[in-house]
Amino acid sequence: MLKFSIEKKLEGTMARAGSIETKNGVIKTPVFVVVGTKATVKALTVEQIKSLESQVVLANTYHLYLQPGEKIVKDGGGFGPFMNWHGPTMTDSGGFQAFSLGAAFGNNVSKVAKSTEIETDNISQFDKDGQLAKVTDEGVEFKSHLDGKLHFFTPEKSMEIQYDLGADMIFAFDECTSPTASYEYQKKSLDRTLLWAKRSLNRHEELDTKKEQSIFGVIQGGRHQDLREEAARTIGGLDFDGFGIGGSFTKDDIGTAVAWVNKILPEDKPRHLLGIGEPLDLFNAVEAGCDLFDCVAPTRMARHGTIHTKDGRINIRNQKFTTDFGKIESDCTCYTCSNHTRAYIAHLFRADEMLASTLASIHNLHFILRLVENIRASILDETFMEYKNSFIKKYYKS
Amino acid sequence: MLKFSIEKKLEGTMARAGSIETKNGVIKTPVFVVVGTKATVKALTVEQIKSLESQVVLANTYHLYLQPGEKIVKDGGGFGPFMNWHGPTMTDSGGFQAFSLGAAFGNNVSKVAKSTEIETDNISQFDKDGQLAKVTDEGVEFKSHLDGKLHFFTPEKSMEIQYDLGADMIFAFDECTSPTASYEYQKKSLDRTLLWAKRSLNRHEELDTKKEQSIFGVIQGGRHQDLREEAARTIGGLDFDGFGIGGSFTKDDIGTAVAWVNKILPEDKPRHLLGIGEPLDLFNAVEAGCDLFDCVAPTRMARHGTIHTKDGRINIRNQKFTTDFGKIESDCTCYTCSNHTRAYIAHLFRADEMLASTLASIHNLHFILRLVENIRASILDETFMEYKNSFIKKYYKS
Repeated sequence: MLKFSIEKKLEGTMARAGSIETKNGVIKTPVFVVVGTKATVKALTVEQIKSLESQVVLANTYHLYLQPGEKIVKDGGGFGPFMNWHGPTMTDSGGFQAFSLGAAFGNNVSKVAKSTEIETDNISQFDKDGQLAKVTDEGVEFKSHLDGKLHFFTPEKSMEIQYDLGADMIFAFDECTSPTASYEYQKKSLDRTLLWAKRSLNRHEELDTKKEQSIFGVIQGGRHQDLREEAARTIGGLDFDGFGIGGSFTKDDIGTAVAWVNKILPEDKPRHLLGIGEPLDLFNAVEAGCDLFDCVAPTRMARHGTIHTKDGRINIRNQKFTTDFGKIESDCTCYTCSNHTRAYIAHLFRADEMLASTLASIHNLHFILRLVENIRASILDETFMEYKNSFIKKYYKS
Repeated sequence: MLKFSIEKKLEGTMARAGSIETKNGVIKTPVFVVVGTKATVKALTVEQIKSLESQVVLANTYHLYLQPGEKIVKDGGGFGPFMNWHGPTMTDSGGFQAFSLGAAFGNNVSKVAKSTEIETDNISQFDKDGQLAKVTDEGVEFKSHLDGKLHFFTPEKSMEIQYDLGADMIFAFDECTSPTASYEYQKKSLDRTLLWAKRSLNRHEELDTKKEQSIFGVIQGGRHQDLREEAARTIGGLDFDGFGIGGSFTKDDIGTAVAWVNKILPEDKPRHLLGIGEPLDLFNAVEAGCDLFDCVAPTRMARHGTIHTKDGRINIRNQKFTTDFGKIESDCTCYTCSNHTRAYIAHLFRADEMLASTLASIHNLHFILRLVENIRASILDETFMEYKNSFIKKYYKS
């Protein structure tokens, strides 16, 4: 089980720097969690993941359940050892993908599924009531995005799969509603998520008799302050080891909505904001008291040629880069910037070479990992607000 | 300019072990040359190429001419520095691809072009006289496989492009005929290849005033002993720094046909057998006096899940490997075998993950590179025939 300790709280904000001890190592927070959807961080070797000084890898329960199946992963020692990553690990509950890739199979969302990626945008594909055809209090019935076969996830099933996947930190099964769902639906959904949280906790306690896994409850509630606060009180009152904050936010309200929740959640447990990786959001969410973040955006963007720089994003496929023999960032210490020019990377993208994805992913992950490390350092030395302001001014040219 | 020296000749065979000094390092021969078609060894970083102890990388003139263009590569310091490889380098003449990917555009061959790979099989796509519509004594007109635009390669043009690409070793422009071409056509074609060899040599001498590049003449002649011998005499009599042996062979005659040529070629110049990478062929060609080999097969096969082992090839996509937690080869020291199980690699292939190609390519290149290194060692300690027999018995189960 995890041990969370807070090293420093930043006065005037909810930001904190701390550490999470797991049986596979210590995580310094705030931290960006690298996503290894199918027990591989796309286009990277484990050696490269380590070289990036990644602290923790998160895999997707939905994807590994479908392929290769949790029993194979279990026989491989759990998803960490299966992919030969021996640091701290997390799995999500599978709920988000069951809704967005599974239940919505056959409409636009399934196109996204082809890229074997999860995108927050998918939420907008939920039908307008936020009511998915096959969600009941018992669980969610969904079709596999791979072959269309029917599957049924319950909170118990999610715990059983996550037990087999064997991550250090797992998540309770929750209903992820559409941001366009009605207030009434969201309210009703919260009751279900509370019910599922309790069932998740029970099944987890039955399975994990050696207490090797830690479980995070998930706070939903859409964009409604009262629902978010209610969820923080009810779920936050249960015996979880940490909490995830799910759902979608707008750029403007993310700090506000997260603050509603974190003011209520117990201070002594880590808080993971699910699926967020945009620099501004990371600053705002840290300021509002979050400790962990995960997102496929850095690597997905990279595979499309969109690359983070301190002066904002660039699209390396742009014509002007084909003759630009400078580095992506002249002061960047990542493998890509240490070894290759913009012209070479532009060539690789235009020639559809796999190495393009590898090099761009390394840079983007390095960028976001170092950003969150710098945020942590700025909490410790009380320069957070200055760092935030100067970074954002440069990155967003605002 | 290169310096070739022979360390050891194996009695009773034409096999020899030696070394080639280039301005970018020394190559120990026999050697397998790693193919970096578009200035990237597909799916591998330069770090990984180095970790494989690759000695020399060959890029394709045709591909780099079309994308990104030789002027950009030149501005990047030549194709080695452009891709950040600072060891010895080679470029082919572009002739083979102009014929097989270019001139044959629109028929089956262009499908192959989509995979941006060159396959020896393409030769069979030449029309039945071996006469391509647009080959004249002046040069070859071809359509780009990328956009169908017309281009014209002459021996002079090939030299100019290869000068810009800046490799340590380059090839004269030759006509690569179809193995199904008539004897008369092949004979006529040899005259043209001889003419082109002289023009290549002349233009090379005009360009390379600093004598930084070495040039290899190319021996053609199909499967005809008299034509192969004539080519070896005429081309072999010109002032080249080494020789390439081109064309296609059958499994049975490769040693024989190569021996016809090597008996005549000057002994003190290196001999490169173009496009060959099958273990049996490597043994036979070394025995018949070849020093260098290049082939896309190890990496192309790898990307399709076909993996070399000392007991023959396996297809890692096979169902039985999904639950096989052993290594690909238990005694292999490559990165892949040191870190991953068959089950994990099988999962990556089935999940269409890029890492599958990377891990399989590392193993296959390691396998072939070490094979040719072992062949070299077996020449030095005079165990070549024993090594050949025991390897082949195991690999081909013959």
